[in-house]
Amino acid sequence: MSMTGQLLIGQRAYRGENGEFRGLDAATGQTLEPAFGGAGLADLDRACSLAEAAFDDYRARPLEQRAAFLESIASHILALGDELVERCMQETGLSRGRIEGERGRTVGQLRLFAEVVRQGSFLNVRIDPAQPDRKPLPKVDLRLRNIAIGPVAVFGASNFPLAFSVAGGDTASALAAGCPVIVKAHSAHPGTSELVGRAIQQAVSLHGLPEGVFSLLFDTGRSIGQGLVGDSRIKAVGFTGSRTGGVALMNIAADREEPIPVYAEMSSINPVLLLPHALRERGAVMANEFVVSLTLGAGQFCTNPGLILAIDGPALRLFEEAAVEALEKAAAQTMLTTGIHGSYCQGTERLRAHAGVETLGQGLEGERYQARAALFATSAVAFLQGLALREEVFGPASLIVRCNNEAQFKQVISALEGQLTIALHISEADYPQVRGLLPTLENKAGRVLVNGFGTGVEVGHAMVHGGPFPATSDTRTTSVGSLAIKRFLRPVSYQDLPAALLPLELADANPLDVPRQINGGRVHD
Amino acid sequence: MSMTGQLLIGQRAYRGENGEFRGLDAATGQTLEPAFGGAGLADLDRACSLAEAAFDDYRARPLEQRAAFLESIASHILALGDELVERCMQETGLSRGRIEGERGRTVGQLRLFAEVVRQGSFLNVRIDPAQPDRKPLPKVDLRLRNIAIGPVAVFGASNFPLAFSVAGGDTASALAAGCPVIVKAHSAHPGTSELVGRAIQQAVSLHGLPEGVFSLLFDTGRSIGQGLVGDSRIKAVGFTGSRTGGVALMNIAADREEPIPVYAEMSSINPVLLLPHALRERGAVMANEFVVSLTLGAGQFCTNPGLILAIDGPALRLFEEAAVEALEKAAAQTMLTTGIHGSYCQGTERLRAHAGVETLGQGLEGERYQARAALFATSAVAFLQGLALREEVFGPASLIVRCNNEAQFKQVISALEGQLTIALHISEADYPQVRGLLPTLENKAGRVLVNGFGTGVEVGHAMVHGGPFPATSDTRTTSVGSLAIKRFLRPVSYQDLPAALLPLELADANPLDVPRQINGGRVHD
Repeated sequence: MSMTGQLLIGQRAYRGENGEFRGLDAATGQTLEPAFGGAGLADLDRACSLAEAAFDDYRARPLEQRAAFLESIASHILALGDELVERCMQETGLSRGRIEGERGRTVGQLRLFAEVVRQGSFLNVRIDPAQPDRKPLPKVDLRLRNIAIGPVAVFGASNFPLAFSVAGGDTASALAAGCPVIVKAHSAHPGTSELVGRAIQQAVSLHGLPEGVFSLLFDTGRSIGQGLVGDSRIKAVGFTGSRTGGVALMNIAADREEPIPVYAEMSSINPVLLLPHALRERGAVMANEFVVSLTLGAGQFCTNPGLILAIDGPALRLFEEAAVEALEKAAAQTMLTTGIHGSYCQGTERLRAHAGVETLGQGLEGERYQARAALFATSAVAFLQGLALREEVFGPASLIVRCNNEAQFKQVISALEGQLTIALHISEADYPQVRGLLPTLENKAGRVLVNGFGTGVEVGHAMVHGGPFPATSDTRTTSVGSLAIKRFLRPVSYQDLPAALLPLELADANPLDVPRQINGGRVHD
Repeated sequence: MSMTGQLLIGQRAYRGENGEFRGLDAATGQTLEPAFGGAGLADLDRACSLAEAAFDDYRARPLEQRAAFLESIASHILALGDELVERCMQETGLSRGRIEGERGRTVGQLRLFAEVVRQGSFLNVRIDPAQPDRKPLPKVDLRLRNIAIGPVAVFGASNFPLAFSVAGGDTASALAAGCPVIVKAHSAHPGTSELVGRAIQQAVSLHGLPEGVFSLLFDTGRSIGQGLVGDSRIKAVGFTGSRTGGVALMNIAADREEPIPVYAEMSSINPVLLLPHALRERGAVMANEFVVSLTLGAGQFCTNPGLILAIDGPALRLFEEAAVEALEKAAAQTMLTTGIHGSYCQGTERLRAHAGVETLGQGLEGERYQARAALFATSAVAFLQGLALREEVFGPASLIVRCNNEAQFKQVISALEGQLTIALHISEADYPQVRGLLPTLENKAGRVLVNGFGTGVEVGHAMVHGGPFPATSDTRTTSVGSLAIKRFLRPVSYQDLPAALLPLELADANPLDVPRQINGGRVHD
């Protein structure tokens, strides 16, 4: 397969005529061929029309067909082979190992959602049978199932060019729910986007699905992305990116005549709490693990450990020394885009220049667009003084907040905004203190983890990659793991619908063999 | 117990000093004693502080205690006896039978949620055990549960002074989820509100719960309600009322520094579709049932049948005649408030004066604040011309839309906004046509019902009282039935948390005996 720079609207591929742009080699900043034509409003309209037209057909397809379609997307992505890996490496500056790993995760996610679709719990089937003899009034027959919410707009993320982009978690979970998807490609990896988009397009055709199930748009500005969120045919939005970008989309969605849910995963500094006993017992080990996590993928993870909290003292200073020692050996790494690199440099510069901040150390110097890891320290008082030190610096930079005592330690925790993750490093002697902290930590984060770091997000059933604002726009949800499908579903109740008209999953005989809850009892298999 | 006109803030009761108002006798418009003192911003702040302080304590209480508390509220409401019934009748103009029935529903809801709490499915426990030997990377231990979202603001509804007011469905489901609740009383039934509020206050004390679990505020204007939604300590909002009111709260919530979910149940005209064969076979019977539903409780239900759709012809005209005949015998009924009565009169006047609308008939004339039922007809063309004929007229008025043919019938359905319910009246010969309509109806409404009317909302497990905007603000949810608890929960994932620190519902041995999903398999009891 080769890249053409074309929009993928349903089964068509044609060149957008609203300006053009090219991918850039992340390492050198040089432009890459081909040029990508930007979508215009007519293209957006066509994609939305097709999605709307496809919706009822697609969501009514047998679960097995939907599952096979998801698996087919996975196979088609793998079939792209090295062309995909190499283009993706070029566009993102990420290593072959990372891209291949991410491809594995992407394919794994698609297959996980295929299993979720087959298993059928997501339908949340509930049956309250009729009781015609009930007094004083007979009871009607009520049957509930979840149905797809409607066409979904997905915004590709720059930092996961495969796993959170065109065929990433948002797309996989929306397609699994029965929703057509229109992806607005991230301009940082257009070639990767087109290749993956064509893989989906082929799977749509192979499985005989209505073409509007998938479209891919390139946007030379912001009008297409904003137009998508504002379009009345779009019923939900998936987004991973900056807080500014996410909030802008939330506002567009809230201002629509019919407001719709936006699932934006935005901003998190992922505090790491070093408890006193653990810090004393194994500070140096923790410091080395911390630097590995901090510098992984040039720190370009939503779950990157951007903040360390501990009570000041010799143990913390030893931790700092060990961390600096490890950091100073850390090679600089190419960042995803020159823009992200620029922001990272500004962010670290801002910390370096801050009167209350001490620069503890930095990583090795690198090439022009490479990020040099950096570690800073500040006092709890300075940290609490304003929001300046609580903002995410996207990349391999972290800030240690030295607290004078336990009260101050708790005060800093209470002042934190919503987070994706909070990590605790603890020993058994710390348990009593941790027990007291857990209620607050649960209220602040979607995932609480022990003796590890938030990077390395397991794609499973018990994962929550979400959290209170500003970590995400909707703390009731996760964007990673099987629970992500719930974002694109809504319940519908059927009262006294004749058996001949019932959807199969609601039929008495349970021909689809889905889990069901009868009269509120436990779920029957 | 006697009414005092006091605010109930935690376990305190004292008089609000921000103005005062009195309840009105709905039938006569005369003021009732006592006067109720309005809350000021300091009272609001106190209630929010107490709720915040109570939150972690309350949500950590054993499930059995939470369930018993809900049941205790039910008992305390019943113990209010006739004082509650009589005050409620006076304030709302509703009949004794209706109020006693609604009290039964309110108590039933509280007991249902007690069962939901005990059963434990709402926790959505998921466990993905560790796999230390997995290659290439070991798998961490992940355990997920739902926790309460935080303190909830509930706005009492005028049309359900018990079942959707102080101890109604929103309050019951929020308390069941583990959330403290602050109720803003509806000014149409302050005495009813105080009596029920005191019943909750007693239950809080009896069960040794932190006092901030419940507070009740009276508001002489809008500042307290708006202030509640804007307060950073409030994490979700439950509201039943007008579209204007709901949208105003949605906007406040979206504009907060930390946006929060608003569950507003607002506006629905609940279309009733009369399919051709059914109409021919039993039009007269349907017409009589329709008038019963239309005039039930003076038409003051969110699910009142405000729109009838059918293809024009002799069968429809016979239906109309039968409906008018029944309607002309329908007694006028006192409305909930003079304001609602005034709006109803304006709404029916507007229809009567509309050039494209024919007045088919009306009910018997009544007293000053009583609503006279009314039935109108229009053409599909006139209906489609603008939004004027699609607005809800709250009360016993309905509009028949006569379609020329099936195409026009479908066109009108497609033009409908989101609804709580859509009812179908069908015979077996109509099934093929219905099969074609169902996908559209599912997309438009939270509940699709056959050969009945939306009034009479069964409180069960398979009920959805929700629907696309403007029926509600959040189509993913229901405000009636056990599923309503989900609105006040968020998932949290725990990674590698030592057994000694795990919440009981996540412990290996399952000491709470809650349903759990292990490795994404079916739920194990």
